[in-house]
Amino acid sequence: MSSKKLIGVDLGGTTVKFAILTLDGDVQQKWAFRTNILDEGQHIIPEIVDSINHHIDLYKMSRDQFVGIGIGTPGTVDLKNGTVTGAFNLNWKKPQALIEQLETGTGLKAALDNDANVAALGERWKGAGNNGDEVAFITLGTGVGGGIITNGEMVHGIHGAGGEIGHMIVEPEGYLCTCGNRGCLEQYASATGVVHLATDAAEEYAGDSKLKAMVDDGQEITSKIVFDLAEKEDDYLANEVVDRVAHYLGLASANISNILNPEFVVIGGGVSAAGEFLLSRVNAAFQQFAFATVRDSTTLKLAELGNDAGVIGAASLAKRFM
Amino acid sequence: MSSKKLIGVDLGGTTVKFAILTLDGDVQQKWAFRTNILDEGQHIIPEIVDSINHHIDLYKMSRDQFVGIGIGTPGTVDLKNGTVTGAFNLNWKKPQALIEQLETGTGLKAALDNDANVAALGERWKGAGNNGDEVAFITLGTGVGGGIITNGEMVHGIHGAGGEIGHMIVEPEGYLCTCGNRGCLEQYASATGVVHLATDAAEEYAGDSKLKAMVDDGQEITSKIVFDLAEKEDDYLANEVVDRVAHYLGLASANISNILNPEFVVIGGGVSAAGEFLLSRVNAAFQQFAFATVRDSTTLKLAELGNDAGVIGAASLAKRFM
Repeated sequence: MSSKKLIGVDLGGTTVKFAILTLDGDVQQKWAFRTNILDEGQHIIPEIVDSINHHIDLYKMSRDQFVGIGIGTPGTVDLKNGTVTGAFNLNWKKPQALIEQLETGTGLKAALDNDANVAALGERWKGAGNNGDEVAFITLGTGVGGGIITNGEMVHGIHGAGGEIGHMIVEPEGYLCTCGNRGCLEQYASATGVVHLATDAAEEYAGDSKLKAMVDDGQEITSKIVFDLAEKEDDYLANEVVDRVAHYLGLASANISNILNPEFVVIGGGVSAAGEFLLSRVNAAFQQFAFATVRDSTTLKLAELGNDAGVIGAASLAKRFM
Repeated sequence: MSSKKLIGVDLGGTTVKFAILTLDGDVQQKWAFRTNILDEGQHIIPEIVDSINHHIDLYKMSRDQFVGIGIGTPGTVDLKNGTVTGAFNLNWKKPQALIEQLETGTGLKAALDNDANVAALGERWKGAGNNGDEVAFITLGTGVGGGIITNGEMVHGIHGAGGEIGHMIVEPEGYLCTCGNRGCLEQYASATGVVHLATDAAEEYAGDSKLKAMVDDGQEITSKIVFDLAEKEDDYLANEVVDRVAHYLGLASANISNILNPEFVVIGGGVSAAGEFLLSRVNAAFQQFAFATVRDSTTLKLAELGNDAGVIGAASLAKRFM
């Protein structure tokens, strides 16, 4: 039996996370450092290479003990050429030969995918996806991202836009999105979307509400504040906002499921910290909008891996080198 | 080089269609007979078996010249057990051991899928899908069905409901669907949906319109009449109806594409006989609702195979026996 290892790298705008995993996906070592985006981000890949080499030495391991490296990255990935474009939060203004530099620098084989997709792969493999072949993943953070796995394979589509769940239209004449369209899920279910809904709701509401008082007072509102006011203080307006967020998330989850009938729709990311309180309401909307067979066979779940989803899913990319 | 053949069977509530195809998907023989749904449909499978055996003899062929049989059927298919349940238009009240009976009766291997999925496979292989690995297919008939192919494989989902595009919710508080939900695409883009929209529109409209006059006069309206009045007579109300149909179809196509980024969304079925007139309007809505990358890489197309999509796609199922 092989005891080879996988390396997973989760490259983000703030930190780069690393992990060494067994082939079964058990994390054996983890480390991280702050992403250095100076000088158009040209230090990022060399620093990743150095860190991997350093840790292989540190753990007194050799290269032939590793199957390879998997990396999740922001931006648009070119799977065939192993390059990344448009990762603006890394300050990468030109396409980056990520795979070539990783492989040359470490002497290991490397594979990449975008950050939302590797998080989906992580949750699918070792988290809420229960290693199933049919999993949809929605991550609610500053934006809304996602990844879709059908027949056991990640869906990239013809030009890499597979899994852009945040840009499903849930309100055709709704809020303007950064993508230029109106009514994208991202505008209602991201952290900023929740705040936008809360601000607008406060403006229209005349009744008694702490949320409204805070908005009217010019205090900074976060999605966490909205969920806390709804759950812990039973604030009327905050509950209205949570219901709208849940409506749109339930509608999107149901429409994904009505066409793909996944085993699980996994909801993760910062906003999902609201946990079962949010999930139960999303599920109510999902039940309303899902087709009968789907209602009975697709299950909504909270993500289970937190920040580790990225490194675990990234590592799973390297299994192709076995 | 092998010159083996495939047999495709398209089992419908009205007719059973057959074809013998080359491995490249060229149709060499076609025949059909009326579906005999008497006696709880118990004659259907034996008659299919007899017809296949008869035609193999008729064309002076032998069983070892065939790779196998693929069949598309109404109802819910159990892919693992090769059975069909709930095919009410065949009068099948109990589960049917379709594959077992076909294989025993013909001495050939057989594979099945549901009718919408085989039509999708047909269009993907030899029609508008250009043999691509990423194709979504929407069929507009009495109902709205569909099939989704990602990474070259049909998406069935965890319980066979993959591709239920007709039950995507496009109008959350809209028309009541036969499935029990409100606002399913099927209620707006099927033949009956178009008529429903036309009838309601006529009731609310006070201006000059032949469509309105026909409705008010109690004449029978069909989706064809609505499209003809819009295209050929520039009827104001009929055009409004077509625009709404196109809006919902464009919205659904865009949402499918925003999460799957297929190469093609292929629109077929009877309603799509309206052709480019309908497609151009659906495309306008699609362009409005699709995410930028998707807008640039996913193309809406009309189906190309007409009634042959079913037998061709069904035959493609038998390629697994090569």
